[in-house]
Amino acid sequence: MQVRLPKRSFSEALAVLERVVPTRSSSPVLTNLWVEGQEDGLILRGSNGEIDLELAVPAEVDGQGARLVPGQLLGQVVRGLPGELVELALQDGELTIESGSFKTRLATAASDEFPGFEFAVDSLVNIPARELSRAFSRVRYAASSEDYRAIFRGVQLELHPGRLRAVASDGFRLALYDVSLPIEEERKLVVPARSVDEIIRVLERSEGDVSLGAQAGHLTLAGDGFRLVAALMEGEFPDYERVIPQQIALEVRIPAALLRDSLKRVKVLADRSNHRLDLIFNGEALDVVAEGEMGRGSEALQAEVVAGEAMSLAYNAEYLLDALGPLASTARLRFSGAASPSIIQDEDDQGYLAVVVPLRV
Amino acid sequence: MQVRLPKRSFSEALAVLERVVPTRSSSPVLTNLWVEGQEDGLILRGSNGEIDLELAVPAEVDGQGARLVPGQLLGQVVRGLPGELVELALQDGELTIESGSFKTRLATAASDEFPGFEFAVDSLVNIPARELSRAFSRVRYAASSEDYRAIFRGVQLELHPGRLRAVASDGFRLALYDVSLPIEEERKLVVPARSVDEIIRVLERSEGDVSLGAQAGHLTLAGDGFRLVAALMEGEFPDYERVIPQQIALEVRIPAALLRDSLKRVKVLADRSNHRLDLIFNGEALDVVAEGEMGRGSEALQAEVVAGEAMSLAYNAEYLLDALGPLASTARLRFSGAASPSIIQDEDDQGYLAVVVPLRV
Repeated sequence: MQVRLPKRSFSEALAVLERVVPTRSSSPVLTNLWVEGQEDGLILRGSNGEIDLELAVPAEVDGQGARLVPGQLLGQVVRGLPGELVELALQDGELTIESGSFKTRLATAASDEFPGFEFAVDSLVNIPARELSRAFSRVRYAASSEDYRAIFRGVQLELHPGRLRAVASDGFRLALYDVSLPIEEERKLVVPARSVDEIIRVLERSEGDVSLGAQAGHLTLAGDGFRLVAALMEGEFPDYERVIPQQIALEVRIPAALLRDSLKRVKVLADRSNHRLDLIFNGEALDVVAEGEMGRGSEALQAEVVAGEAMSLAYNAEYLLDALGPLASTARLRFSGAASPSIIQDEDDQGYLAVVVPLRV
Repeated sequence: MQVRLPKRSFSEALAVLERVVPTRSSSPVLTNLWVEGQEDGLILRGSNGEIDLELAVPAEVDGQGARLVPGQLLGQVVRGLPGELVELALQDGELTIESGSFKTRLATAASDEFPGFEFAVDSLVNIPARELSRAFSRVRYAASSEDYRAIFRGVQLELHPGRLRAVASDGFRLALYDVSLPIEEERKLVVPARSVDEIIRVLERSEGDVSLGAQAGHLTLAGDGFRLVAALMEGEFPDYERVIPQQIALEVRIPAALLRDSLKRVKVLADRSNHRLDLIFNGEALDVVAEGEMGRGSEALQAEVVAGEAMSLAYNAEYLLDALGPLASTARLRFSGAASPSIIQDEDDQGYLAVVVPLRV
């Protein structure tokens, strides 16, 4: 088998797969990439046991064949190639890679040692890759990294009639993102947060629509030049909607970047153990204050009051910053009280909603 | 005491000092910075016990005073300030920092807890900061990180009549850099490599000349806006000049970047234990070859033969790349034989000379 393809697209595809393919594994075969010449391109597959990923790279291919090649090594070699074109040849179990004045010969293994891939997609919905990527990436931060209540280590994807929702929580905060879509059924799928990170990377380089499906405990995604299967977590989130407050005592508007920058400055002085930072609203005046063992920091800002009264609230500064992270323009903050959950939304991206619970002080 | 100064110059000076000031120390007072208002500027001092560094930042100062302020915290606060001007006020043991809408109050400690600084410079030679920085940074890589023969963990600065030399070695390779200077005496000073790294950073932001001196086991440097004292190592390098070969069997010229890029590509295939990479010279042809457990890589290059015959040499690829690292234009390589030291020089920077010993194969 002989293959000719641009270094650039080959190297980009390998970079995505290298992130999935483990450098070491209790199942050493997984450190390999499946490299296969097909009629219209080169097929590359990798797996970490939780995600199976297949990328198709357009290439001129003569002949057919599939072998396993050490994943990290292949990535390193291809990134460093001197030419813009790469020629691959598979013969007698060796993969030869040539480009410009450089030539390498890599030992390979038989492809039948690789775990089987089940890339068949039972499509539930088609969604633009960018929308799905945005939904996952806006809420990812709120997933738990603790073993306690393991289900919160995943991001829940919910299919409802007319919309798709991604939601994450660690029990102390919540983030959700809604996308309107012509969906008919109800379905909940919990994807491990680590897999979500890789899915976001794959989606970000994809154009057009993605076909999303589920089968036998797996999420399946198929789009332009890729197919992906990710193992799902068992179970689903407890009812989280009841922590979103309905009674609002104060609602304000403030440019998100202004508030974020101020929080970052002031939090430097916060107590190292609880990261406490206070927001003190009084009319249009907003004082951001933190005080710890090293001293005290404060900043005077202005916020537009939409409705409500003066209020003082204390937060974990990191949680507040995380919740503001996805906001691009104006933050709309709604406070139900100093000891009950607060809502953070983005005026220009109504799909996003975050809930942060104030510190008990 | 009240001080007004631009955020930018304050923050740049703090960034340099923050690298020296330890975040934790068995001597906790060293985690502080000495902050002092003088007539024409703000004096900042920090120490890690091996290097004492003083930076002067131009500022408007009313009154006088010196206090100790937690170093990392001050850096973080100042970097984040919203305005372009910073106002400091020292009163009742508290340092107030104001900028734009932000205000902070930091607890400080009395300055007499700080170790004494001996910044007096007994000048041996004046040298442009850039030249000294270049001399140190070109040879730094060759210093040892092993405890064996501890003197090689330093960079030796040699004053000879008419020139200054920086030299580093780990016993397997050697790098030296000569600068012509009107020096009259002979002197050898061995500076710990870790201190060399910080000295390079300080010199890189300095203009003009530096006054270099030595006193009581310390190197002293004084230049535009800074004074620095670094503890020296005891002893000096064994005679290293005898490893620089005099009999040359092959001399070639080759663009340094071309050779470096090729070595980086080919070394990916090198044996993981000895990093062996072969250079095979035959007329104008140069083959770069590596072979390891994963396969074989090779690249065909051309090198101009200045004098000599065909030769095959094996190196540790990392050592060869390190030695080529400082080269900007054309490398001049001189080989004394396959089992004896090789010389690497830069045609456009005659001050630099590296010696690498081939692998025994």
